[in-house]
Amino acid sequence: MTSPSSLHLAVCDYPEHVPRDRWEAYARQQKELGLSFVRIAEFAWSRMEPREGQFEWSWLDDAVNVLHEAGLGVVLCTPTATPPAWLIRQHPEILPYDEFGRVRAFGSRRHYDFASPVYRAHSRRITRALAERYGQHPGLVGWQTDNEFGCHGTARSFGGASAAAFPAWLEKKYGTLDALNEAWGNVFWSMEYTAWEQIGPPNLTVTEANPSHVLDYARFCSDMIVEFQEQQVAILRELSPGRFVTHNFMIFESGFDHYRVSACLDFPTWDNYPTGMLEHFGKWVGEDLKTYYARTGHPDAIAFNHDLYRGLMRRPFWVMEQQCGQVNWAPYNPLPADGAVSLWTTQAWAHGADCVSYFRWRAATMAQEVLHSGLLRHDETPDRGFFEVERLKREDLVLGDVPAKVALLHDYESLWVLDQQPHGGPAYWEQTSSYYTALRSLGIDVEIVHPDAHLSRFALVVAPSLTMISDARLEKLRGDAAGRAFVFGPRTAFRTASGRAHENGQFGNFKTFFGARVLNFESLRPGLTIKAGGHEVTTWAEGYEPLEGAEVLAHYEGGPLEGAAAAVRHGQVVTIGANSTGLVWETLYRLAGELGLNPTPLPPGIRVSRRGGRTLVQNWNPERVTFEGRELGPVSWTLV
Amino acid sequence: MTSPSSLHLAVCDYPEHVPRDRWEAYARQQKELGLSFVRIAEFAWSRMEPREGQFEWSWLDDAVNVLHEAGLGVVLCTPTATPPAWLIRQHPEILPYDEFGRVRAFGSRRHYDFASPVYRAHSRRITRALAERYGQHPGLVGWQTDNEFGCHGTARSFGGASAAAFPAWLEKKYGTLDALNEAWGNVFWSMEYTAWEQIGPPNLTVTEANPSHVLDYARFCSDMIVEFQEQQVAILRELSPGRFVTHNFMIFESGFDHYRVSACLDFPTWDNYPTGMLEHFGKWVGEDLKTYYARTGHPDAIAFNHDLYRGLMRRPFWVMEQQCGQVNWAPYNPLPADGAVSLWTTQAWAHGADCVSYFRWRAATMAQEVLHSGLLRHDETPDRGFFEVERLKREDLVLGDVPAKVALLHDYESLWVLDQQPHGGPAYWEQTSSYYTALRSLGIDVEIVHPDAHLSRFALVVAPSLTMISDARLEKLRGDAAGRAFVFGPRTAFRTASGRAHENGQFGNFKTFFGARVLNFESLRPGLTIKAGGHEVTTWAEGYEPLEGAEVLAHYEGGPLEGAAAAVRHGQVVTIGANSTGLVWETLYRLAGELGLNPTPLPPGIRVSRRGGRTLVQNWNPERVTFEGRELGPVSWTLV
Amino acid sequence: MTSPSSLHLAVCDYPEHVPRDRWEAYARQQKELGLSFVRIAEFAWSRMEPREGQFEWSWLDDAVNVLHEAGLGVVLCTPTATPPAWLIRQHPEILPYDEFGRVRAFGSRRHYDFASPVYRAHSRRITRALAERYGQHPGLVGWQTDNEFGCHGTARSFGGASAAAFPAWLEKKYGTLDALNEAWGNVFWSMEYTAWEQIGPPNLTVTEANPSHVLDYARFCSDMIVEFQEQQVAILRELSPGRFVTHNFMIFESGFDHYRVSACLDFPTWDNYPTGMLEHFGKWVGEDLKTYYARTGHPDAIAFNHDLYRGLMRRPFWVMEQQCGQVNWAPYNPLPADGAVSLWTTQAWAHGADCVSYFRWRAATMAQEVLHSGLLRHDETPDRGFFEVERLKREDLVLGDVPAKVALLHDYESLWVLDQQPHGGPAYWEQTSSYYTALRSLGIDVEIVHPDAHLSRFALVVAPSLTMISDARLEKLRGDAAGRAFVFGPRTAFRTASGRAHENGQFGNFKTFFGARVLNFESLRPGLTIKAGGHEVTTWAEGYEPLEGAEVLAHYEGGPLEGAAAAVRHGQVVTIGANSTGLVWETLYRLAGELGLNPTPLPPGIRVSRRGGRTLVQNWNPERVTFEGRELGPVSWTLV
Ligand SMILES: [Zn+2]
Ligand SMILES: [Zn+2]
Ligand SMILES: [Zn+2]
Repeated sequence: MTSPSSLHLAVCDYPEHVPRDRWEAYARQQKELGLSFVRIAEFAWSRMEPREGQFEWSWLDDAVNVLHEAGLGVVLCTPTATPPAWLIRQHPEILPYDEFGRVRAFGSRRHYDFASPVYRAHSRRITRALAERYGQHPGLVGWQTDNEFGCHGTARSFGGASAAAFPAWLEKKYGTLDALNEAWGNVFWSMEYTAWEQIGPPNLTVTEANPSHVLDYARFCSDMIVEFQEQQVAILRELSPGRFVTHNFMIFESGFDHYRVSACLDFPTWDNYPTGMLEHFGKWVGEDLKTYYARTGHPDAIAFNHDLYRGLMRRPFWVMEQQCGQVNWAPYNPLPADGAVSLWTTQAWAHGADCVSYFRWRAATMAQEVLHSGLLRHDETPDRGFFEVERLKREDLVLGDVPAKVALLHDYESLWVLDQQPHGGPAYWEQTSSYYTALRSLGIDVEIVHPDAHLSRFALVVAPSLTMISDARLEKLRGDAAGRAFVFGPRTAFRTASGRAHENGQFGNFKTFFGARVLNFESLRPGLTIKAGGHEVTTWAEGYEPLEGAEVLAHYEGGPLEGAAAAVRHGQVVTIGANSTGLVWETLYRLAGELGLNPTPLPPGIRVSRRGGRTLVQNWNPERVTFEGRELGPVSWTLV
Repeated sequence: MTSPSSLHLAVCDYPEHVPRDRWEAYARQQKELGLSFVRIAEFAWSRMEPREGQFEWSWLDDAVNVLHEAGLGVVLCTPTATPPAWLIRQHPEILPYDEFGRVRAFGSRRHYDFASPVYRAHSRRITRALAERYGQHPGLVGWQTDNEFGCHGTARSFGGASAAAFPAWLEKKYGTLDALNEAWGNVFWSMEYTAWEQIGPPNLTVTEANPSHVLDYARFCSDMIVEFQEQQVAILRELSPGRFVTHNFMIFESGFDHYRVSACLDFPTWDNYPTGMLEHFGKWVGEDLKTYYARTGHPDAIAFNHDLYRGLMRRPFWVMEQQCGQVNWAPYNPLPADGAVSLWTTQAWAHGADCVSYFRWRAATMAQEVLHSGLLRHDETPDRGFFEVERLKREDLVLGDVPAKVALLHDYESLWVLDQQPHGGPAYWEQTSSYYTALRSLGIDVEIVHPDAHLSRFALVVAPSLTMISDARLEKLRGDAAGRAFVFGPRTAFRTASGRAHENGQFGNFKTFFGARVLNFESLRPGLTIKAGGHEVTTWAEGYEPLEGAEVLAHYEGGPLEGAAAAVRHGQVVTIGANSTGLVWETLYRLAGELGLNPTPLPPGIRVSRRGGRTLVQNWNPERVTFEGRELGPVSWTLV
Repeated sequence: MTSPSSLHLAVCDYPEHVPRDRWEAYARQQKELGLSFVRIAEFAWSRMEPREGQFEWSWLDDAVNVLHEAGLGVVLCTPTATPPAWLIRQHPEILPYDEFGRVRAFGSRRHYDFASPVYRAHSRRITRALAERYGQHPGLVGWQTDNEFGCHGTARSFGGASAAAFPAWLEKKYGTLDALNEAWGNVFWSMEYTAWEQIGPPNLTVTEANPSHVLDYARFCSDMIVEFQEQQVAILRELSPGRFVTHNFMIFESGFDHYRVSACLDFPTWDNYPTGMLEHFGKWVGEDLKTYYARTGHPDAIAFNHDLYRGLMRRPFWVMEQQCGQVNWAPYNPLPADGAVSLWTTQAWAHGADCVSYFRWRAATMAQEVLHSGLLRHDETPDRGFFEVERLKREDLVLGDVPAKVALLHDYESLWVLDQQPHGGPAYWEQTSSYYTALRSLGIDVEIVHPDAHLSRFALVVAPSLTMISDARLEKLRGDAAGRAFVFGPRTAFRTASGRAHENGQFGNFKTFFGARVLNFESLRPGLTIKAGGHEVTTWAEGYEPLEGAEVLAHYEGGPLEGAAAAVRHGQVVTIGANSTGLVWETLYRLAGELGLNPTPLPPGIRVSRRGGRTLVQNWNPERVTFEGRELGPVSWTLV
């Protein structure tokens, strides 16, 4: 892959979906549009290998060559998201099970269990065949493994191959059943095991399963994905040197540990569908805001994913699939606003993307996505997004560093534990996003990183939902805290590594670090609110007692927590126990000011991002806004 | 059957539910009430054949004779909606599967798979035995096959006999797997099949199944019903000449193609439960209207079904089951208003019914329907409906032609395709009903017919949801358009016969016919609205570009479709792309006026219908209304 | 057990959850807090018998001895709510089936089928082993069988052992299939059986199952619980003479007949979680009231359960588990108000509790309930509830009689029948509670008793939902009516013992007793209301025709029931057919006044209860209230 100096544009295309006589014209048109790369062959296993061992490469040879000859770089995909019918009928044991114990059938995609030894063998086989043929093709720039791991709730299978592999994974981890029983607290309801093979997936239990059981099943399933992908990547590394290997991750996907799954890649990519995201994933966004942002998506929800994938491997990323018209899979699928494609593309650039690849070239005339748009309409005429891309190719969006001074800590284990027992409080993404939105509304650039990452470049570290803090992690954070400020959120340091509560209560052995002990936590029904430092508190409240040397930033008013601390500060460590947009915003505003981060309250819908020495100002409002003396049209951006 | 000259009244009765000593008295009372026919033996298999091959006819002999001797005509039913316990336990393979893969158990009704060869043999056997015994009884006027095909989601079984029969049906249709794979677009996600037996029902897939797969499964299941019923009808024709054969269809039932299923009948009947219909089926009716019409049902929802069943075979129909008091199966089951039974009966007459048969004689004192009313109460005293029927028998509702000049085109394949991928837009029945309601609110009589029907008698043809238009169908419609005006709705001509999109986009090869090409379609979340010609647009919007010679009737205002055409007119062909009550109403009003159809805006709740030279004016409001100088009491009617 | 003269306090503890070195300190602290008893070993089977036949008693010996030596009485539990893993893997046939036909898996609790002969044998085995070892221990005061029968929907299993045992239970009950078919009305949809083994559980039917089938399955499952528990109790009686045997029943649990299940016990206990109850069970409580009472629970919902369990065996009861901080299992889990633990404890006393046992000593640091509070926090510091208990130990709450003069009739068979076919009307608990709340808001003490109980001590008997009235029951009630007034509610006497409707309609043979016949019943959708005696009627309305000698207390106004009687009085028997809070309140107020019961309308949130000659006045409002010249602080009580 070349080292580009400005943002690349690309497209996802499916030559097998259209007659052969279209290919040259499409390639020419793609090149003229200013695109650099084309991703192909994503789901094409049944065309590569129509019957077991009978490979048909000629069409794909053609497709790769046509693109290469047009001057386009090719990204190839391993087609393992869609095992063909002949394979499934021969080996139905590949199929995954849903949480209700039902086999998930052939007939769409992702119908496989990551733990299946049979499927892994076939996955390696098709990957090797593909890599042998195209691995050193001069037009090939890189590889995408599979497609959107975890999509449609497929990160976990609750039976079959996964159920069979789980006990051995546990035995390897714990060594003895005594250790496992103690780690999970199985004495609680006589859930103690006396043989490894007694342990199944944590589904279909009479009432909720042990959260420690659930947590280890999540880790196990995540590890199965790691192994599955690593087997493909090893083959690609061997047979296709010099090409990048990536995977296209999903918006807010929570089913596996992305840090571990991405470890074997060159860089991550993700699939950005802003309007579908808002309707489908934005469960914490109110109906009014959903309507307001229906045609652009919510700026912070999108930016959050950008900053998440830039922070995942701490390097630039790609948007592998970028919505460029209406989607088909959300409850409602409005047309994007005029300018939205441009807004999304420049936003991606500003948050660290090196390439934005539109999905898809031509709208599909068949099957599940027939109502999804592309750059071309069904009738091959250029659609609205096409013209926006055409204008974009004239912009020079130079690559460079995103100068974030604020880190937001995120890990999937805290997510799993918190969402398994929300206790009526906000879900993990909601709680985490609320801190992110506060920072972004202050004009602050953020990088989302793992809690165990190096934090030396940051002046402020925000950890909204870090419920899993082991002794080792805390020691590391304690070191980081020497040089920078920290803000923690509710439910911090409640759990041990196996998902139990600390024997000495929340904050465990780290009360002196936080400068407080926890008195009580509670969840509030809609309509039942209290106050903290004058701000409204909804859904969740933790009351603290400050320890010596700690300062109370806000007290609770009203309710049984009256008078208890809602936020405490101990040196440079701030902990906020209340779910309160106002308190979070005010605390971050003051602290960022104190740290010289120049927080700047932005008008609603205005967002500012920096990259490579330039500043992108975007207006996400459907109306004209004047900002710092500048007139910004509806759904528009400017570089300053 | 006699050729009646005025509306017949009838009743559904279950002699096996009451002691033998009641039968003569009931028959006498039924005759005195002015009833002509009694439908019996609907679910009585376990009494006809208590054990396999051991028939018990004496009770049914009695029942038929008692009615005949009282001067009542008898309608007998094949009892196949309720296979008895001994048959199911002997052949559990008769049982159907639900979409979640579970066997649907014995213990209520409709527990059979239409494709089961075993069940078909038993169905023929009991039909033959029944027809042999009663086929030529002088009291017998006709037959009802089974009961309410498709009720309780039984049109489709997702396993067992249906799953086994599906591949052969496909092979017969497509000949080769290549043809099937191409028709379904199976290349899309490597869904291509290499053996017929690889193909299963389209359920339990990881994400949505291929809509073409779903479409063919719907056709297959519909065909199984056609075959199942045809086998019964052939036997009845052979053994019971001169008697009619019908089936009692369900309100808004969507699981099979009624045109094909009714083809072997003499005329159709349907089961009319206005209050239950509103609560249970009226998903598109707002809560306020549901409350307003809670005691009568919505006039247009009922009339729609009348016009649907009159148009089904283009001949008069029966209401085989007419609600005459509160029902038991809706979420709420209020008492009908005073006058409602009379309103429903006269409405049925005006829309082409030759007979209205009340359900049921006496309220059941047992089992699932113990909370359902009848003409008699549980205690055998006449209930409220009884007295309304008594007054009705004095009316002379002369039969005759319904002089509809407007056809509404409807087909089940468009319904299946549209509802499988609604994309956030209105469901098929909602979209179709909105055009129907507009016409009825203009005082216009409508006939609902198949798109391939002869349209010569109509001045205006409205096709609200005709998404399936093949080249052949369009050619036929083009011919029809020579002599009459057409109005098409959103999503017209989007799909090919196998459910793909046309390769050249919406309208396929027929852009010159419609005078437009489609620019974009989108769906709008609640709260996100745009305008078209000054009218509010909700849920769905298609933007058009007019071709030469076409006139734009309305432009979009607001949103990305700003300035695009929302409705175009090309000669006598109008196409409306916006889901807009106001725009539809205005367009139909103007066009009907232009065509001399004398559209007359009616006050809310007032409806006008014509039959045999007379005009029925009905007030469905719970309040008195003055209309054209006439005082109409609440829930009342008058013939003019 | 000693015969206490004032309220005992107790606690639930789980020594196996904490290190051995804590036990003495905990016991000392419990004694100092004023507790009398400690319940232990509830779920400890895997610690008592880690492998089949290998018992480990030493830890439990210690635990019992430590408590005994500290002067605390011990309540032991049979641990059968949690069969251990080794037992389930050896005998998976123990597992129950849910209503969707799925096996409910190991991994939480209550994973057994009450009808399983294998499990019953193991249940007897562990009970015997436990009773042999501790049955005569001087520290042992009593036994709790299992835990919360029916919790998590486990009263009924729909397959496996229960399915296998059902036919024999039916054969024993009915003798012949003819009798069963007649009792159930199986002729209705040819559901007649010709062999016992054809009859399965009433689940997975195509549409609703026969309600008589459902009713007998409920009875059968309830009988399985009776048998299961009786086998344990017989062993405890044999091996542990002089100790009480009880079971801890659940809030509003409906899955079995508590009268039959409690018959073999000494007294009942129940588990009182006021805030969780309001969120989870209070389906009929509006959102506003839920928010208002979020931190105390609804006073009448709690009191209802107290009066239910006092009336169950007509003797004092225990609260075996009393919430003393936030719970973890409701959608929202707020902190209780300051004073709530005290309010709950005194309320329990006033309604007849002899002991209140808090759940639990220390908050669990593991597994499913890690977010549930205890008297101690996770970190072993005293939590908010601890301090309330400390103050309570100084109160002298002398035991004595609850002088209720009003009985409320309740039976589980009416509950099952009514909730199986609600017909849009209120659910059983809602309807029943509305009468209870009316009485409590008039300051009247109530005892909830079985309809066949002796009623001689009562001046007024209220039967809000007695739909099951056999001839024998009515004769008995007729005798009772000689000496006292009766108030019946809607749907009274509609059903026969097998769940059919009476052949002569509602009220069956008892029209002269009620002084009315039923004209019609109907259900009203939200927004559709009528009036009765000037009061609003929602959801349900029955219209009556008074017979000679009866007085109409209220007529309907509006709707088809206009002019019909909504409430009639025949001598001392009043029947109210309308679901109308106002009409019920007014009728009870007048009648109670006439009967000299001194009804006193109380302000909202104020409740008055009497026991042993003293009167408890409670303020459940979160605000200060002046009542009868007395200032009552928020969430407070006083004894007068
Ligand atoms: Zn993709
Ligand atoms: Zn019927
Ligand atoms: Zn318990």
